[in-house]
Amino acid sequence: MIERVTVVERIMDANDRLAQANLTRLDQAGVVAVNLMASPGAGKTSLIERTLDALGGQLRVAVIDGDIATSLDAERAAAAGARAVQINTGGQCHLDSSMLQQALDQLPLAELDLLIIENVGNLICPSGFQLGAHHAVLVASVPEGDDKPYKYPGMYRGVNALILNKVDLLPYVPFNLDYFRQGVEVLNPGLEFLPLSCQTGEGLESWMSWLRARLPGVGR
Amino acid sequence: MIERVTVVERIMDANDRLAQANLTRLDQAGVVAVNLMASPGAGKTSLIERTLDALGGQLRVAVIDGDIATSLDAERAAAAGARAVQINTGGQCHLDSSMLQQALDQLPLAELDLLIIENVGNLICPSGFQLGAHHAVLVASVPEGDDKPYKYPGMYRGVNALILNKVDLLPYVPFNLDYFRQGVEVLNPGLEFLPLSCQTGEGLESWMSWLRARLPGVGR
Repeated sequence: MIERVTVVERIMDANDRLAQANLTRLDQAGVVAVNLMASPGAGKTSLIERTLDALGGQLRVAVIDGDIATSLDAERAAAAGARAVQINTGGQCHLDSSMLQQALDQLPLAELDLLIIENVGNLICPSGFQLGAHHAVLVASVPEGDDKPYKYPGMYRGVNALILNKVDLLPYVPFNLDYFRQGVEVLNPGLEFLPLSCQTGEGLESWMSWLRARLPGVGR
Repeated sequence: MIERVTVVERIMDANDRLAQANLTRLDQAGVVAVNLMASPGAGKTSLIERTLDALGGQLRVAVIDGDIATSLDAERAAAAGARAVQINTGGQCHLDSSMLQQALDQLPLAELDLLIIENVGNLICPSGFQLGAHHAVLVASVPEGDDKPYKYPGMYRGVNALILNKVDLLPYVPFNLDYFRQGVEVLNPGLEFLPLSCQTGEGLESWMSWLRARLPGVGR
């Protein structure tokens, strides 16, 4: 029993060390990296498309797409104008720092400003694995329901900003915004909250302001 | 490398053996068990509430709720009239057969007809762990998007029935039903497909027919 725990801790240590190396490498290249996490279908890829569109070529952006199968998301990111790298995890339920390292090897980091890492769709496992990104952003969505902060506390606790996507569906589904925000506030006091709709475009400018503020000296 | 694979296989073997023991135990007690899996917020708990309501006390039902934290879902199931057992996985991303065994210990199996197991909200990890249920049912939902079979093939491949919940949202979100069903058909030919809405009640009678047909001699 103790042996098993020791092994797991050693794996996490190794992951964290490599995450730190990834972060240093990104810093040296002047690239700001954002780790986007979400439940399947919350809208990570749509947000990336909207973001690339809003940037209108002002920044040099790459997208690393984590998926257990297919390259559908990477194709969408590439079509929207980013350099895209696909990581197929082969069934693995999250990205780790070693996968990110391998993906970074395939990118001309010195020629980039922003790196968006689209993690595997999963509200549990990715929260336990540091990658080496500067910011962790959770994309929640209205149809998932207002109880998700209470049910997936690890994910809500570990992020630097929270997007609530699909607010255009608020009239059609039961969702108590106060209850949702109370859950978030207990877990992650003062967390940046960005409600928006990738479908209608509503609220996107707040997200873009948040993002630009984290890219010092670029595009401002 | 080979050592690691061996260990993982041994763990899976142990899980499968215990799953078989759970199944035998349920059979001997005359209980039919359904393992409900889904992405977070697809509507597993709402489906359980609707199912208990539609059964109107005709069957003796228990619900085992798997969650990484809280007992919100078990409370909803209990309020809807089921015997409810909460499994808090303590951060673990799926149920396994050992957790089910412990939950079965807390139920009067001889006094039950139907056991609904609500797995942890996750489209990846639960598909790899047999529990010992008779049927595996996936609850997909319209706002998740039509590409999910392509992106989470393991889950779609391993189930006996597929519910598509939240069809009342079809007018408001982009969702190509043909594309979705083509993806499903490739992975799991002939899979029972049950579109419905737990919000409006539309389509629920097909799900109830499917369920009743799997409960021989009960309530018919």
